[in-house]
Amino acid sequence: MFAARYVPGQKELSLTDVPKPKPGPQDVILKVRAAGICHSDLHVLHGEVPYKESFTMGHEACGEVVETGSQVTEKFAPGDLYAVHGPNPCGHCNFCRSGHDNLCNDPSRTFIGLGQDGAYAEYMKVPARNIVKVPKGISPEVAAVATDAVLTPYHAIKAMGQVQMGSKVMIIGLGGLGMNGIQIALALGANVTACDLKEPNLEMAKSFGVQTVINSKNLSVLEPQSYDVVIDFVGLEATFKDAQNFVKPGGTIVLVGLGSATAPVTTASAITYQIRVQGTFWGTHIEMEELYDLIAAGKIKPQVETAPLKEVNHWLHELAEGKIKSRMALIP
Amino acid sequence: MFAARYVPGQKELSLTDVPKPKPGPQDVILKVRAAGICHSDLHVLHGEVPYKESFTMGHEACGEVVETGSQVTEKFAPGDLYAVHGPNPCGHCNFCRSGHDNLCNDPSRTFIGLGQDGAYAEYMKVPARNIVKVPKGISPEVAAVATDAVLTPYHAIKAMGQVQMGSKVMIIGLGGLGMNGIQIALALGANVTACDLKEPNLEMAKSFGVQTVINSKNLSVLEPQSYDVVIDFVGLEATFKDAQNFVKPGGTIVLVGLGSATAPVTTASAITYQIRVQGTFWGTHIEMEELYDLIAAGKIKPQVETAPLKEVNHWLHELAEGKIKSRMALIP
Amino acid sequence: MFAARYVPGQKELSLTDVPKPKPGPQDVILKVRAAGICHSDLHVLHGEVPYKESFTMGHEACGEVVETGSQVTEKFAPGDLYAVHGPNPCGHCNFCRSGHDNLCNDPSRTFIGLGQDGAYAEYMKVPARNIVKVPKGISPEVAAVATDAVLTPYHAIKAMGQVQMGSKVMIIGLGGLGMNGIQIALALGANVTACDLKEPNLEMAKSFGVQTVINSKNLSVLEPQSYDVVIDFVGLEATFKDAQNFVKPGGTIVLVGLGSATAPVTTASAITYQIRVQGTFWGTHIEMEELYDLIAAGKIKPQVETAPLKEVNHWLHELAEGKIKSRMALIP
Amino acid sequence: MFAARYVPGQKELSLTDVPKPKPGPQDVILKVRAAGICHSDLHVLHGEVPYKESFTMGHEACGEVVETGSQVTEKFAPGDLYAVHGPNPCGHCNFCRSGHDNLCNDPSRTFIGLGQDGAYAEYMKVPARNIVKVPKGISPEVAAVATDAVLTPYHAIKAMGQVQMGSKVMIIGLGGLGMNGIQIALALGANVTACDLKEPNLEMAKSFGVQTVINSKNLSVLEPQSYDVVIDFVGLEATFKDAQNFVKPGGTIVLVGLGSATAPVTTASAITYQIRVQGTFWGTHIEMEELYDLIAAGKIKPQVETAPLKEVNHWLHELAEGKIKSRMALIP
Repeated sequence: MFAARYVPGQKELSLTDVPKPKPGPQDVILKVRAAGICHSDLHVLHGEVPYKESFTMGHEACGEVVETGSQVTEKFAPGDLYAVHGPNPCGHCNFCRSGHDNLCNDPSRTFIGLGQDGAYAEYMKVPARNIVKVPKGISPEVAAVATDAVLTPYHAIKAMGQVQMGSKVMIIGLGGLGMNGIQIALALGANVTACDLKEPNLEMAKSFGVQTVINSKNLSVLEPQSYDVVIDFVGLEATFKDAQNFVKPGGTIVLVGLGSATAPVTTASAITYQIRVQGTFWGTHIEMEELYDLIAAGKIKPQVETAPLKEVNHWLHELAEGKIKSRMALIP
Repeated sequence: MFAARYVPGQKELSLTDVPKPKPGPQDVILKVRAAGICHSDLHVLHGEVPYKESFTMGHEACGEVVETGSQVTEKFAPGDLYAVHGPNPCGHCNFCRSGHDNLCNDPSRTFIGLGQDGAYAEYMKVPARNIVKVPKGISPEVAAVATDAVLTPYHAIKAMGQVQMGSKVMIIGLGGLGMNGIQIALALGANVTACDLKEPNLEMAKSFGVQTVINSKNLSVLEPQSYDVVIDFVGLEATFKDAQNFVKPGGTIVLVGLGSATAPVTTASAITYQIRVQGTFWGTHIEMEELYDLIAAGKIKPQVETAPLKEVNHWLHELAEGKIKSRMALIP
Repeated sequence: MFAARYVPGQKELSLTDVPKPKPGPQDVILKVRAAGICHSDLHVLHGEVPYKESFTMGHEACGEVVETGSQVTEKFAPGDLYAVHGPNPCGHCNFCRSGHDNLCNDPSRTFIGLGQDGAYAEYMKVPARNIVKVPKGISPEVAAVATDAVLTPYHAIKAMGQVQMGSKVMIIGLGGLGMNGIQIALALGANVTACDLKEPNLEMAKSFGVQTVINSKNLSVLEPQSYDVVIDFVGLEATFKDAQNFVKPGGTIVLVGLGSATAPVTTASAITYQIRVQGTFWGTHIEMEELYDLIAAGKIKPQVETAPLKEVNHWLHELAEGKIKSRMALIP
Repeated sequence: MFAARYVPGQKELSLTDVPKPKPGPQDVILKVRAAGICHSDLHVLHGEVPYKESFTMGHEACGEVVETGSQVTEKFAPGDLYAVHGPNPCGHCNFCRSGHDNLCNDPSRTFIGLGQDGAYAEYMKVPARNIVKVPKGISPEVAAVATDAVLTPYHAIKAMGQVQMGSKVMIIGLGGLGMNGIQIALALGANVTACDLKEPNLEMAKSFGVQTVINSKNLSVLEPQSYDVVIDFVGLEATFKDAQNFVKPGGTIVLVGLGSATAPVTTASAITYQIRVQGTFWGTHIEMEELYDLIAAGKIKPQVETAPLKEVNHWLHELAEGKIKSRMALIP
């Protein structure tokens, strides 16, 4: 079957033919229906996150179950869509047992599509426990990008930021994740201020019903120390400084974006005003189930474009150039 | 009466005579029995925390109630000790109403002894709602230093660090606060590792029953990413780096010490391992009540030395030189 | 001024003239604009909740500040509406200091309108700390009934039931409180099933967008043990049995209604399925602020009818007969 | 091998020979070293909890791993002890994924020793994911009874009661579970009042350092409404009434004992004082790990007697007669 594979040292994926995977006793084989591309792919290709072995890339996956391992008892109907929980948790470490399977630290665990074969292929192998049923009416491409571009902001805002009805929330950075983030915060009943430097992104944010939309150049008109939660989807020193200026005493900054290697916390104000800076990583299996319910109910509308899987290197290049407006899913 | 007063621009307190304070309708007058000195005093005297008006310094206070305002209905027996809750919360802002009175942000609120007249005097005025009864058997000097040197680590460890029975906790920095901090963590049932550069401090930590005591030079023998909570009582870039090395995925670093202006968070690991960096400020009224119960039960034994209040400038100088081993309380 | 007063032993309020109240140093005087009537009034008049002294009844109040005590520094504009936080908390007991001011247990505290003079009068006296500003655009009658008929379900559902986005919630009993309750649960993003025996109430529930509306006679069509939270606004043995049948393992039943003296918990299932039964009492000052924001944003539309205050005894009688469909506010 | 098996309709276990179990791919075979007996066994034998099929009884198990299934990669040293997590959770339902594996509701799941073969035998089969390593120095019989007689009160007190340092806790009923319960509450730093009708049990409670020990006949000397948490290990109407009398406003009653079919909640006080009644079921895998650490550290000393497994029917009879003082473990 066709697969687009990472090869250590190469800057582009290798488009090649590989054998169709066979399931282990507890695996399923998915016929891939859509596979999202993501900046994490670029971090790997650019050598920032090194892997020593080749693998088929693609960690945002949706497909149909076409084969099951010998010990998988669940039944899967043809045509039903399933999405892949990329953190690929083991189910028996203490993070998995305590509801934090996004942090699974089993030594033998690798992310799907990042270290082991993923979704840029016609078929992929996944542990049966790490797929989530996609409700009817959600397209494969939306289901695919939601596994990261919705799951990450969902976990960041709901679990890490503990945003709730009435929370005053600032969202910094309106790219793919941030744009889903504002919809999540609104669905939670928050009062949202959305910031970005790009006017078209601010326009789109406005169309989702955000209460306040403001160009990041003009933040000085806002009241300092007035937001319960600030979600920094950028992570540059400048945005992190904004976050610290606008978070309320006792409030939380959730750090999502990897824009800078270091986020400098101003100790005097972090201590005097008891500020929390909270890192956030991807999301849990249960959160994936929750967010598909939200998408099915129309509360989150992830933006996504599609293209043929064979064009994967072209679109990764476009992504690197900042030319993809929302998120992109590839169709095998 | 005698008072030691901060005067803007002066590096030493002015020892002077001032009128004895009169209570407002909801105040009490305390005859000061002990007043702790603290690094915060030095920050003010050294101009780092500027105040425009003169005031009597001293924010760690214990005394007897000798007079009450016209609307204070509570009765106070002669000889009973009361300690002062230094954050001096208003009782009606939303921080006060939601259990976070350490963060009170009423515009007219000032800390007692930091902005308004405090405890370096024979008598002091305090709102009746902001004193806490000290159980029998606790000395005035212990009660005084506990208002900050126990309350701050108590809030940091219990409320902010959420340390509980079985938590694996690293305490960095064994000065006055850190030494009380290890006793608090032990009382909570935590498994504690205590670090410092000074061997005598490590020896004293050992005497409190700490499970692991280690010189900060030798931290490399410890397992990285293995502590649920790290409490940084120093706040230098070096200690904050240690904190990041040793905190577990999903864990919390509580930042107490103001050693450096900036605490640089390494974004890649803070995000991938979902680390929380939590500032912490002083403590609440209810926490003060709780910690006196712990002291009365013998679970925390705050170390304290005493000297006459008239020597305040000498002892502030000693404090600045690092010559005070534990904490110092002045007796009027 | 005119006042409708409870007199021990009388079944009706005494309509009489009393002196206009004078403020204590920390009080305000409200010119009453609307006063809600409530079943609690009937419990007092019927002797179930005995009081030994006379007082002006009325614990759901909204008015304008027309006079302030000597120590009240806040300014109040003529025409601005303020609502009264009926639990009338003291601000210094440990319940008040820990964010649970609805449970204030200061011995000298009495509820406003239940034990001390309340809102069935032209003017009323309230501690300045226990009034909440009503946003523009909310009518006095809505503001008045919201102090109990919205606050009670808000506290029950959000704080006690911990309902959140995606929670599956059953609301039993669609009277005044239940009807506001379904709007609150929907605003929180819950998936709501509403039950009642009366078809018109079910119709109105449907108009608020409730996902499932069902006559309590037909509950057997629902899946047992499938609701995260069940709110019992009735409290009869029959409704409490329904609640136990439909709550999920690990789930919560919030008990609001006083329909029966005893709610019999079936121990075997409560233990095996780890069920929580949670009583709930009125609500907090901060919750009052939050819910007026929700009303102002149009997320909750409390139903209310009005009548002249002088007709209070007539309308209390109608209430006792079950003839008031939603809630009733009296206008002095 | 020898096994003591439940046979539907029989009041005694059938002592018989059965084939040694073979592991499934993800199972281990334990050579049983100790098996605790429990009132739940009696409930089954007396027909209160009916099972249609025969099975080897015994749900409190400790043994050595002597064989592993084909897909079990973990290594087990001879002589190392492992205890069995009796709820036998599946690892993939949403209770398991969210940290509540004691509530696992997978339809194919059955408790070990209650519905499927358990520990009253020479060997037993267990899923590898459902065993917990026992630290060195803990005997097999202590490890065995701890799986229920310590785990149940641990979960009840720490997770359900949220008891913490300084909590004022009343423990009603000082049988096997209650006696472990007081040690757990003390380890958490609580201030504990222990009640029972039997003086020898009160004497033993005193020996563990409980602050207040009182015969249940004399509870009227205690202050009503003064306990943060009441743990009812009995569950009779009389003890539940005591629990309601002594729990504080805003407090929690944890219901552990199945003494009566119904626990009647007094609605007026449950609502006015916002009382929580919390059922509690067994405990989680992670809690089992935590409690063995506590036992190894000497903070909990479970009392246990031993006898040969062949005498199981005799000792079940003694248990039914109330003649076993603490807990009993059988040795194959």
